[in-house]
Amino acid sequence: MNYGMIRFLLFRVLQITGLLLILPLIVAIIYHEPGCCKVFFLLSAGCITLGSAGAHFKPNNIAIYPREGFVVTALTWIIISLVGAVPFVMTGVVDSYVDAMFETISGLTTTGSTILTNVEMYYSVQFWRTFTHWIGGMGVLVFILAIMPMAGGYSMHLMRAESPGPSVGKFVPKVRETAKILYLIYFVITLLEIVCLLFTGLNLYEAMTTSFATVGTGGFGLTNDGINAFSTPSQIVIIVFMILCGINFSVYYYLLTLRPLEAFKSDEVKLYLGLMFGSASIIAYLIYRQGITATPFESFHHSLFSVVSVMTTTGFATLDFNTWPQFARTLLVLLMLLGACAGSTGGGFKLSRFIILVRTMKNELIYLVHPKSVKKVYMDKQPIETTVVKSVSAYLSMYVIIFILSTLIVSIDGFDYETNFTAVAATLNNIGPGLSIVGPTGNFAGFSVLSKFVLMFDMLAGRLELLPMLILLSPDTWKRR
Amino acid sequence: MNYGMIRFLLFRVLQITGLLLILPLIVAIIYHEPGCCKVFFLLSAGCITLGSAGAHFKPNNIAIYPREGFVVTALTWIIISLVGAVPFVMTGVVDSYVDAMFETISGLTTTGSTILTNVEMYYSVQFWRTFTHWIGGMGVLVFILAIMPMAGGYSMHLMRAESPGPSVGKFVPKVRETAKILYLIYFVITLLEIVCLLFTGLNLYEAMTTSFATVGTGGFGLTNDGINAFSTPSQIVIIVFMILCGINFSVYYYLLTLRPLEAFKSDEVKLYLGLMFGSASIIAYLIYRQGITATPFESFHHSLFSVVSVMTTTGFATLDFNTWPQFARTLLVLLMLLGACAGSTGGGFKLSRFIILVRTMKNELIYLVHPKSVKKVYMDKQPIETTVVKSVSAYLSMYVIIFILSTLIVSIDGFDYETNFTAVAATLNNIGPGLSIVGPTGNFAGFSVLSKFVLMFDMLAGRLELLPMLILLSPDTWKRR
Repeated sequence: MNYGMIRFLLFRVLQITGLLLILPLIVAIIYHEPGCCKVFFLLSAGCITLGSAGAHFKPNNIAIYPREGFVVTALTWIIISLVGAVPFVMTGVVDSYVDAMFETISGLTTTGSTILTNVEMYYSVQFWRTFTHWIGGMGVLVFILAIMPMAGGYSMHLMRAESPGPSVGKFVPKVRETAKILYLIYFVITLLEIVCLLFTGLNLYEAMTTSFATVGTGGFGLTNDGINAFSTPSQIVIIVFMILCGINFSVYYYLLTLRPLEAFKSDEVKLYLGLMFGSASIIAYLIYRQGITATPFESFHHSLFSVVSVMTTTGFATLDFNTWPQFARTLLVLLMLLGACAGSTGGGFKLSRFIILVRTMKNELIYLVHPKSVKKVYMDKQPIETTVVKSVSAYLSMYVIIFILSTLIVSIDGFDYETNFTAVAATLNNIGPGLSIVGPTGNFAGFSVLSKFVLMFDMLAGRLELLPMLILLSPDTWKRR
Repeated sequence: MNYGMIRFLLFRVLQITGLLLILPLIVAIIYHEPGCCKVFFLLSAGCITLGSAGAHFKPNNIAIYPREGFVVTALTWIIISLVGAVPFVMTGVVDSYVDAMFETISGLTTTGSTILTNVEMYYSVQFWRTFTHWIGGMGVLVFILAIMPMAGGYSMHLMRAESPGPSVGKFVPKVRETAKILYLIYFVITLLEIVCLLFTGLNLYEAMTTSFATVGTGGFGLTNDGINAFSTPSQIVIIVFMILCGINFSVYYYLLTLRPLEAFKSDEVKLYLGLMFGSASIIAYLIYRQGITATPFESFHHSLFSVVSVMTTTGFATLDFNTWPQFARTLLVLLMLLGACAGSTGGGFKLSRFIILVRTMKNELIYLVHPKSVKKVYMDKQPIETTVVKSVSAYLSMYVIIFILSTLIVSIDGFDYETNFTAVAATLNNIGPGLSIVGPTGNFAGFSVLSKFVLMFDMLAGRLELLPMLILLSPDTWKRR
């Protein structure tokens, strides 16, 4: 294990966290929140000083092998969570440090589960809370890759460990270039949403925080009313940007480089949009028939909002879908679990994994009936490597096992099945609210510290696609060879 | 597709079903149930006549390739279910033929889910109901293999399609010999349980029907009180035989042939017994502490009974575990899903599959950290073939997808999540009762015909390990090559 490089990267992460904390500091100054000013200033200055000092000496060996890549990724996210939780406690918004960590991890992993009963707080702290969504949406290490020159081709292992989906598409041969392009796309989409929301009547603060929560597909709301407080045009803007951020970012890269054919041949995007509009239409029909909404337009608006919100695992809500017909509720829960496209900011199991699993299963059935025919699994008309197919299958096993063990531990608290099951589902898939006690009108405050740690692990595991967290905990990782 | 051989085998199945119907006919004669006598006599005679006529001409080509094996297996089970449902309707015990089919499939697949509110009925019909557990426990085609000489080595494909678990251990080179040995062990265990139950004070009828339900790990009870009507010694006998029937039958073969070392090296049996007694001890402690049971012995008795009943997917109950602490309830549900050993009469996902998945996952993690080390998956100290590992992964995908689609369709009926989820879990794993409306004190009568068909499909898919039912429905199976 290259401990020198791990040390160097982690101090660099601390430094960048310090820089990121300057933004809420500015908000605190603008809104005259002297207490918050002090907290953000001290924390930011501390992180920058310590980080700069620690990252001053570059290690001799800057090679990052897969093992280092996974470990650095897991530790990076843990460090930012530890630091990011401080403002919540120091400003008195959250009482316990564990709860503050829960809230920060929920933000960074773009989950949006909260332990707060009242989400209305200081402007600067609220800004930081939604800003964590934006930071976590694209990932911190990808950011470091984008700004920091790294010799050698090893940085691929860092990007692979932090990026969502079964396999990272490298657009350009250089990882650093890919990271820069990704951040550029991310930045432009955020900016576009802010501008659109300003046009629909939101003020700059509302537009920025809402955009952070949308683009990161997080789901923390500004007010206790959530998205209901906004006008229909604002809600439509949010729908559009949720959809955009659930799509694999490589599509935008292809569009930017004027290769629309490559962009539109993605099987995943076709399934994503097909499932989305198909489900929204069915649900719109069901809720209109039941008289839950007055007009067909309203039905489609609310059903599309809900479908998009759960598929992209954002977790915003306009109507409480718990009162909808059971078929609609079940469909929404299943779409939640499936999630968005790989390479997007959305969470869940990822549609491309689902496609690979279904096609592998189909091939297995054909193989059983015709043992002499051995077929490859295809995606976007390209054959998929056997190692990817294997890793997707292993992913499903890990996912199921983490799900089972988490549900078992959380059940010690004694809540009902629905609460425990959906609390784990909502955190492991980075969705946000679950059902029953952790439903859209409830929160996660009632769990024990043990359960909260399990759910924090699940959020991190879900955001980092399981591997970094599992590898961090695996004894084999720490063995000398 | 060798249609001639499929036709021949299916008529043979009809013939054997006719022969099996003679047993309830005898019961009807003994208990003076003239109406039932007539029904069983006519049905039995009809099946034997039609079956013998149809199976009179042997096909020229008796080769059974994998495709034929899967198709014959699926159709065999469907035919017995169609025939086996007739007595329920003709004797007036069940009103609708769909409900009668549900009950028969639930019996044959050793599920034990019922659509009846009152299970007390004619002796002969009740005998037939529990006898279906016994027939389905070992499988009908294995029986045909045991009694019918089949040239060529092709019959392996039949056995493979009907036997539970990731891979069939052939004890002896000849499939027919293996089938005979399996049935012999099955017969002896059943006989032993009948004798033991007679000693604990049950009459012959009770001992036989209870043994059928135990040995087949089915779970249909004789009375509305279920197993509570029996004394503690009877309950202990039932525990012992449930445990025995959840173990891979190859263990008994090794013991019979005086190879105890081979018998005891099975990783699966170790996990089975370890999980069983470990979980039972934890749950016993929890329910004793909560004062649900009066003495430590009673606590352990009831907790062991429940754990064994769910792990072997029998579904008998002494106490309603819905009132137990949530951790105990969650543990029981998870053990249900895991199920028993491969090659036993129990259902569920099967422990050997779970072991293979966990070890594959562990290897995948090691591979990611040390890409140069490629390890094989081991079981019972033997490396496992890659095709088996692949098929286990594909099995998990199929299982999850069938689970998801079934839950979605069943949700149209509008019941709550817990009912829908556990109804699918209970049928797909061949357990029996679920929770909420389909709990131990409820039944499956309230579902729509569509949902009942989905749940029947799930029961058959679960018992036949998914493949035959999926292959039957796959368009590729019916294509000419």
